[in-house]
Amino acid sequence: MAQLGTLDKNLPADSATEDRATEVLLAAADLIYRQGFDATSMNEIAEAVKLTKAGLYYYTKGKGDLLYKIMNYAMERVERDIIVPCSAIVDAEDRLTQIIRKHVDAIIVTGGAITILTGEVDKLAESENRAILARKRLYLNLVRDTLAELKKENRLRDLDIKIASLNMFSTILGVARWHSASGRFSSKRITDETLRFILSALLNPD
Amino acid sequence: MAQLGTLDKNLPADSATEDRATEVLLAAADLIYRQGFDATSMNEIAEAVKLTKAGLYYYTKGKGDLLYKIMNYAMERVERDIIVPCSAIVDAEDRLTQIIRKHVDAIIVTGGAITILTGEVDKLAESENRAILARKRLYLNLVRDTLAELKKENRLRDLDIKIASLNMFSTILGVARWHSASGRFSSKRITDETLRFILSALLNPD
Repeated sequence: MAQLGTLDKNLPADSATEDRATEVLLAAADLIYRQGFDATSMNEIAEAVKLTKAGLYYYTKGKGDLLYKIMNYAMERVERDIIVPCSAIVDAEDRLTQIIRKHVDAIIVTGGAITILTGEVDKLAESENRAILARKRLYLNLVRDTLAELKKENRLRDLDIKIASLNMFSTILGVARWHSASGRFSSKRITDETLRFILSALLNPD
Repeated sequence: MAQLGTLDKNLPADSATEDRATEVLLAAADLIYRQGFDATSMNEIAEAVKLTKAGLYYYTKGKGDLLYKIMNYAMERVERDIIVPCSAIVDAEDRLTQIIRKHVDAIIVTGGAITILTGEVDKLAESENRAILARKRLYLNLVRDTLAELKKENRLRDLDIKIASLNMFSTILGVARWHSASGRFSSKRITDETLRFILSALLNPD
């Protein structure tokens, strides 16, 4: 039967089970984000998704396993929705634009909690921590290589690539913390404004 | 005797006691940030600052009180080091420059944990939460008024002021999460690069 670990769309899976598994992840992410990992019980998570506690254990081995699955889910989304399509874009400025746009969109659609919790790698077991960091590095490398290419083409401002990419990620990931409280802006507006902010910060004016 | 609540430099206070009180706050902030609020015990905090548990209770009524004092300490620093001196700067661009520079400097000097924990207002009691939000609003207003002034003078890019200030704060507060891991950069370099990133994002090119 489909487990949370196998959200890869290439694998045959019962899609209703898969949707339910994702729903469990999103609800758990939201609770853990709001209350903290230690303060959130499996009972509360079960209640939030209208499962018995035994029912919840069909989807996960426990709370630590849920946190690891939340992070893997986030990294799978990043790989499928950002890394794969953007790697294929030849022009570095177009590539950067799409990376920012797709990442901000994904944060708004998936909800902030999942994004914020991917920062909590130190709550994982050592081997899980390493696995998530390795997946993150793939994404980091795509961004740094893109900035390095822009620098070589004289299109990047006089900025250190490492610090520039950290500041860019701060801005993007920050959207997870404020977008839901800023009710009066559409998703499109938030993405457009944040894209313009980052591109102006990074790129030489024409 | 000096309590943590009275860190105001204008009050007469035993400065050794005050330094010790600040040391307790910084250590508690660091532990709570790394382990989570619920997972951190008063015993561990006492141990980190080489106090007995009874000794620790001389400085605080308990863990919730410590969290509230951490946030008040952060907001006192923001008021003293940023709001007061920057409010006196007449030119809006100079004011914005100094706000960013002083805030990033303060984050690097004080350590990231205290900055990051000021985001956790929802772990406070309702009245404490309101008190901290009111202090935050003072700072937010200074930044928004400054951006509005720049917009009126045609020096701000075509950006929404509310979203622009949120993106600016994401970038500044993000420094708290990455600066200590980026050992190879000096504080001055981090501040200069982050300042340039944000000013380029916000201001029209000359």
